[in-house]
Amino acid sequence: MNPQFEAMPVSIFEEMSLAAARHGAVNLGQGFPDFGWPEPLLDEAARLLREGSNQYPPSRGLPVLREALAAFYADRQQLALAPEQFVVTSGATEAIAAVLLAALEPGDGAIVIAPAYDAYAPLIRRAGGMVQEVVLRPPSWRIDRDLLAAVVTSATKMLVVNNPHNPTGRVLDAEELAAVVAVAREHDLLIVSDEVWEEVLAPGARFTSLASLAPERTIKIGSAGKIFSLTGWKVGWAAAPRQLADVIARAHQYLTFATPPHLQAAVATGLRHIEWLDAPREGFGSARRRLAEGLEAAGFVLLPSEGTYFQCVDLVASGIALDDRTFADLAVAHAGTAVIPLSPFTEGKPERGLVRLCFAKHDATIDAGIAAMTKAR
Amino acid sequence: MNPQFEAMPVSIFEEMSLAAARHGAVNLGQGFPDFGWPEPLLDEAARLLREGSNQYPPSRGLPVLREALAAFYADRQQLALAPEQFVVTSGATEAIAAVLLAALEPGDGAIVIAPAYDAYAPLIRRAGGMVQEVVLRPPSWRIDRDLLAAVVTSATKMLVVNNPHNPTGRVLDAEELAAVVAVAREHDLLIVSDEVWEEVLAPGARFTSLASLAPERTIKIGSAGKIFSLTGWKVGWAAAPRQLADVIARAHQYLTFATPPHLQAAVATGLRHIEWLDAPREGFGSARRRLAEGLEAAGFVLLPSEGTYFQCVDLVASGIALDDRTFADLAVAHAGTAVIPLSPFTEGKPERGLVRLCFAKHDATIDAGIAAMTKAR
Ligand SMILES: CSCCC(=O)C(=O)O
Ligand SMILES: CSCCC(=O)C(=O)O
Repeated sequence: MNPQFEAMPVSIFEEMSLAAARHGAVNLGQGFPDFGWPEPLLDEAARLLREGSNQYPPSRGLPVLREALAAFYADRQQLALAPEQFVVTSGATEAIAAVLLAALEPGDGAIVIAPAYDAYAPLIRRAGGMVQEVVLRPPSWRIDRDLLAAVVTSATKMLVVNNPHNPTGRVLDAEELAAVVAVAREHDLLIVSDEVWEEVLAPGARFTSLASLAPERTIKIGSAGKIFSLTGWKVGWAAAPRQLADVIARAHQYLTFATPPHLQAAVATGLRHIEWLDAPREGFGSARRRLAEGLEAAGFVLLPSEGTYFQCVDLVASGIALDDRTFADLAVAHAGTAVIPLSPFTEGKPERGLVRLCFAKHDATIDAGIAAMTKAR
Repeated sequence: MNPQFEAMPVSIFEEMSLAAARHGAVNLGQGFPDFGWPEPLLDEAARLLREGSNQYPPSRGLPVLREALAAFYADRQQLALAPEQFVVTSGATEAIAAVLLAALEPGDGAIVIAPAYDAYAPLIRRAGGMVQEVVLRPPSWRIDRDLLAAVVTSATKMLVVNNPHNPTGRVLDAEELAAVVAVAREHDLLIVSDEVWEEVLAPGARFTSLASLAPERTIKIGSAGKIFSLTGWKVGWAAAPRQLADVIARAHQYLTFATPPHLQAAVATGLRHIEWLDAPREGFGSARRRLAEGLEAAGFVLLPSEGTYFQCVDLVASGIALDDRTFADLAVAHAGTAVIPLSPFTEGKPERGLVRLCFAKHDATIDAGIAAMTKAR
């Protein structure tokens, strides 16, 4: 078998979810909500199962969904993306896989900004590429132009950005975005911008898509699962300059070929009813506050979080001497909550004193998580 | 962008389906049925959308589905596969992608038996592998040991088999299966056996899984979309010896991570109600006969078909001098039906006088297809 996959562990999300189930712990690890989806979307998908087609849709996605995506992004982010620029995929993970397999050739370098979502590096390597890691440091986690420029070589072909950022919860500011665009333009790099958390923002946070700043070179990744809090639906997309979209579509046609039509059509309806997200947004706002206040009252020191479902805790500043993995293993096995250690998100010299908690949960689950964290101290 | 994907055309299935839509032709091209799914399965999926989870299931698949798969194959094919040996994927295409990316290393050879399903070769190459093509010839399309042995080199690592076979409609007999197993054992090759058509058989046809003959080295690919005539659901699986399944699961976790839980659970219910397929099976039996008889009455010469939704027509023997692509292009643009030319399924020296028609359609569609074929002569 391929030695890269043979040596690879189960993803940290899957590992911690399985551990939570095994130990009967609450699960503040893997990022999925236990509320917050629009009920009409479930009705619509159920209706379409009975009244719509259950056969192969076009490989690039239903026209109705690609049109809804174009309208949605025009409205929310003032992006000038045509329906033809979208490739609908079976989740954002497939979009990332299709983009990396379509774009990279053996020997190409891809810059990854750590801590980084765990799928990027294995997929870059499996595509024959070389991971060029830039490591950010807390508490600011700021990207700057020199940091990026320092790793660029003649082999570098792309820059992979995740904004809003998982696991830190940061949203890139104008200066950081400008740095990304400047380095990409200077070295003629593709930008792969994983923006799956674009609609999951703390009150007051401002998100700008790299597709608005460098449309000529940005491949934008999105996710209906994140927008509508339906992580199991696995409807995602890549949007790219037309010629790149055509190549991504070729990779996609041999990865999954297509995505269930009832889910695609329901997502199209949801994108045209963005008011359905108003109530969930308020719910996530109070859940975010509840977890933060509870943890702070218990003596934990938190890092800022402006986007995503996630709140990071600084174990060291909280007076906890355990490294993140040990803390996470003890927390799930003995204290009653799964959390995600941050060190697996960095290959070279990771921070070892940070864990990530998911707050997109009902009050009782959050409270149980806070109690378990307190017990784990 | 990656030159392999940059140079690649749209898949022939997608191309012909788009052409059918553009010209308002009936679509006997891409393999999907317009009847034959069990209605209770739609009800079950709709119910689960409302009553079950819509969040990430375990990456390897819902336990209830993996248990149902093990029971189904024990019952239908006397296979001794444990639930842990299955990796559930977003369609059989993803299963094939995960298996090839997980198994191959750069430089490995993979034997492909042409005419071959169009996903194999591009995925083998993208995984860094080398395609070693064995070309079968009509009308028998028989595999024999010498043909296979002739292409094996020291680089050869796997043999990709498709049985029942698309596009020819053949089902391998005991002698051919023994040849595959013998060559694989002699050279210690993996067998990737794409058996998605296992439940779509002509009356009297006998199918044997390679997983029963060489369980130690066979990776079996299956598809709920084909079994239940719901090609848009995109629920598939790979079943393999436990250690191989673990490695396939690593590749899968970074291709799609998981598959919608309501569809997985509904498929599990379907697998426990195989009697739901009795009526569709009869329907496909008469559709198969209707297309064959109609074409023969119109003077077309057919090749035998024992499995799949497909019937191949021998243009040369039918007195048609056009090559298969020209015939297919004319048939969809001017005569009113999409068909699939067979030459794109072979890289070296393809036959150029054969087209494939899908018969899994209502009588009226079949009749319109026969009329269009008659017009296209
Ligand atoms: C596909 S599992 C990971 C889900 C997620 O986005 C996270 O927990 O970070
Ligand atoms: C994924 S499109 C191809 C469908 C099919 O199996 C066929 O038409 O051969």
